[in-house]
Amino acid sequence: MTERSVDVWFDFASPYSYLGTARVGALAAQRGVRLRWQPFLLGPIFADQGWSNSPLVLQSRKGEHAWRDLERQARKFGLPWRRPSRFPRPAVLPTRIALLGAEQPWCEAFTQAVFSRNFVADEEIDDAAAMAAVLERLGLPAQSLLDAALCPTERPRLRRQVDTARRLGIFGAPTWFVGDEMFWGNDRLEDALEWCRPVG
Amino acid sequence: MTERSVDVWFDFASPYSYLGTARVGALAAQRGVRLRWQPFLLGPIFADQGWSNSPLVLQSRKGEHAWRDLERQARKFGLPWRRPSRFPRPAVLPTRIALLGAEQPWCEAFTQAVFSRNFVADEEIDDAAAMAAVLERLGLPAQSLLDAALCPTERPRLRRQVDTARRLGIFGAPTWFVGDEMFWGNDRLEDALEWCRPVG
Repeated sequence: MTERSVDVWFDFASPYSYLGTARVGALAAQRGVRLRWQPFLLGPIFADQGWSNSPLVLQSRKGEHAWRDLERQARKFGLPWRRPSRFPRPAVLPTRIALLGAEQPWCEAFTQAVFSRNFVADEEIDDAAAMAAVLERLGLPAQSLLDAALCPTERPRLRRQVDTARRLGIFGAPTWFVGDEMFWGNDRLEDALEWCRPVG
Repeated sequence: MTERSVDVWFDFASPYSYLGTARVGALAAQRGVRLRWQPFLLGPIFADQGWSNSPLVLQSRKGEHAWRDLERQARKFGLPWRRPSRFPRPAVLPTRIALLGAEQPWCEAFTQAVFSRNFVADEEIDDAAAMAAVLERLGLPAQSLLDAALCPTERPRLRRQVDTARRLGIFGAPTWFVGDEMFWGNDRLEDALEWCRPVG
């Protein structure tokens, strides 16, 4: 219970990951909690359970409620929101880039920019031109980051990351870890941060 | 938005329904919101989706997290909690009784007593002797209520209730309705009550 950092597992296609990653920065800073960004892909995790798509697509009643819920939740948290015209959006390239930058100071800004494209601007996120534009706007060396993200020697990194998610028992996103303690969902962000409190 | 009542859809086998129904009374009273108890069964709704059991059983990773989450949530809300040794517990009889009493002043106390048996005492809830004991402890005419609940002319009531849940698009429990607005989960109780606020 003296852990002072939270692992932030998120998927760029996941709308609740958008809400969670948009909120976590300020809340963690208030509490002096350090964040460890853990971009990953839910697709292979869903496939483990025999699902060919997001449960929000496969379970139509649940999906219908979720889109309405997301609209209400975004309003409640003061976050801009537009229901994407394509869901879930392929997100392999931005995930590879975020993994490269996971320990860099630009990771949070990059993450927010990608989520904004998907869930505010309703634009694709899995192409090199879009990602170059995002990186350039952040003042980052776009071409060298894209080259690195697509380099064959770098590519196993994402597979390892998904395997780590599996091993941790992750089944959805966002998922927060405080040490071994797992919290699932944007709804549990505050509880996860509360868990970081030193005892006594 | 001038609606001043909330429909409380719950299933006696559902652990998050236990948390939600235990919390809703005091919160609704504070806000002057009337409650309409809507006991139902999730089993047939899950079956519509091709599921033979609760997702907490069928999806083992999600289930594992949920049991830990329930323990944490119960502590957070100051509610007693024990993980039931049998899950999900058959709950047809108490649901029939609660339906009979849905508009009676005793419905909330009966509901809480049944949930306590399941999620605090870890005892069965689907047998007549257990339900007689619960009703007697509440000073209610146990035998006549049991007779009424099991009367052939009363039995279609539960089927109609489940059909209504289907028609409303309910896919889990607890589910709160404020007019046509649906809120799913114990996590959305406060939002549902907030939605009752008269505008202006």
